[in-house]
Amino acid sequence: MILTVALNPALDVTYAVDRLRPGRIHRVRSVAERAGGKGLNVARVLHAVGATVVATGLAGGSTGDRVRHLLDADGVPHELTEIGGETRRTVVIADDAGATGLWEPGPVVSAAEWRTFLTRYEALLADAEVVVLSGSLPPGVPEDGYRTLVVTARAVGAVSVLDADGAAMRHGLAGGPDLVKPNAAELARLLERAEPASADGTGTALAEVLADARAAIDLGAREVVVSLGAEGLVAVTAQGSWRARLRRPVTGNATGAGDACVAALARGFVDARSWPDRLRDAVALSAAAVAHPTAGAVDPETVARLLPHIIVEEI
Amino acid sequence: MILTVALNPALDVTYAVDRLRPGRIHRVRSVAERAGGKGLNVARVLHAVGATVVATGLAGGSTGDRVRHLLDADGVPHELTEIGGETRRTVVIADDAGATGLWEPGPVVSAAEWRTFLTRYEALLADAEVVVLSGSLPPGVPEDGYRTLVVTARAVGAVSVLDADGAAMRHGLAGGPDLVKPNAAELARLLERAEPASADGTGTALAEVLADARAAIDLGAREVVVSLGAEGLVAVTAQGSWRARLRRPVTGNATGAGDACVAALARGFVDARSWPDRLRDAVALSAAAVAHPTAGAVDPETVARLLPHIIVEEI
Repeated sequence: MILTVALNPALDVTYAVDRLRPGRIHRVRSVAERAGGKGLNVARVLHAVGATVVATGLAGGSTGDRVRHLLDADGVPHELTEIGGETRRTVVIADDAGATGLWEPGPVVSAAEWRTFLTRYEALLADAEVVVLSGSLPPGVPEDGYRTLVVTARAVGAVSVLDADGAAMRHGLAGGPDLVKPNAAELARLLERAEPASADGTGTALAEVLADARAAIDLGAREVVVSLGAEGLVAVTAQGSWRARLRRPVTGNATGAGDACVAALARGFVDARSWPDRLRDAVALSAAAVAHPTAGAVDPETVARLLPHIIVEEI
Repeated sequence: MILTVALNPALDVTYAVDRLRPGRIHRVRSVAERAGGKGLNVARVLHAVGATVVATGLAGGSTGDRVRHLLDADGVPHELTEIGGETRRTVVIADDAGATGLWEPGPVVSAAEWRTFLTRYEALLADAEVVVLSGSLPPGVPEDGYRTLVVTARAVGAVSVLDADGAAMRHGLAGGPDLVKPNAAELARLLERAEPASADGTGTALAEVLADARAAIDLGAREVVVSLGAEGLVAVTAQGSWRARLRRPVTGNATGAGDACVAALARGFVDARSWPDRLRDAVALSAAAVAHPTAGAVDPETVARLLPHIIVEEI
């Protein structure tokens, strides 16, 4: 079983409006809701491609109830620890010109709630081969929360995959996770360097990416996969280093592509496939997420169609 | 007891952001939530000024649960019929430049849910002296829903106060409500005439307002109070016609002032006060709502301070 951890999940709300005009009142044409946040997005992709997954983490209030209800509707098994605060919402206003986002702050988590979660996490680890730690930490969760979760996973022989940013990532690395999956901007922040011109690192020199990935290994990761948007993935692993990408990139909505990538990498550990095969799978799932009309959703048929068009080169 | 009916209540969500910029992602600085929609706003004002009130209507899903929870927190007694759909949200994004609104559509109400509500409504009427019917009808509620509620109230001797717009108002009038409280724009729409230059009718000639109010009586209302924003109220009643206003209007947020006015008028029936006294109370509560930093909230001390400064003239 793959255990995904969502410490700061969200109720994703998307409003379709004719045109967002500040200062005006808008009648919303349609409302779409989804269980969101990186950890739950990874869980949904894993479920969609047939992996055995359980989503754990923290959820509270009426938005937390709604998140659980939406996971049920998607058929994703979940074991979220109840907290007193209200799970945050992320509101996206979609009009013809694009998307406008409103990110609520996460709920404050008490020390007792965090301890309750840790007990549940340890129990769930008994059946987990791989643990995915993904996304931000809500206020109240210790800054080194991911370090604790990585160390606890290793103690029972579970593989840990970490996808986080800033201080949460830096502290998590100190625990020695088996794999981290930053994008170019997250990697730059981790190494406290100037961020690349584009968030997905397009145009960053390969040598620079490789050097940064090795620096992440020096900070504690066993293996590193860097996602570079349309330019694919660069992996520095115990078996060697590779670059993987689609012959011709797909166009679409890149939101959730990183979560699809993490889902594929987590599945790669369960299946114990070779790194080139894992990277092929990760590029295919990411691209399928970009191609899907719903942000972050993956169609297994698209994955199968894309797989033969992926180039993996040893570097 | 005053029974307020909220057939299409809302979870009012207010986001404070630095500046709303379409196409960007915003971190929300603070989130405020309130049980909203005109019917629940009236109930909250009545409770704040010490009236005995029960809020009924329809609510569903996790947003409906949240609305009930927020009414509990405000101490407002409620008996909302559960529906299968999700109660709508109204999201207001507040920045330095003003407020941007996003109004979700209401949930679809089934015929069976409407019948269940009607049974509950009849039972609640047993203890009600006054019924307040306020706000829009959600999809699925019959267009003449307010007519049914008015007729049912009269059958058991309860006074009905109607505050609605468009078709809901027109059909409700046919039931013969004891009082309707349109603003100038709603009155124009009811009479299918050109709307006034300003929504609150500022600058509309008194003779015209009086003629329109009498036309509303011809459509079925027993008495009419027209709200004219800073210019106060015009009442056409069985006892005579009056204009009531503050010597010097207050400044502030007019959102919810109409609901405070309706609350005062409903209370006037319970106390069986003279019309001039009722109008004084209604102007004071409306102005107190404008003056309060929270939209639609009323401070009883402000009401007491404003009362001596209200002019009521027979017209």
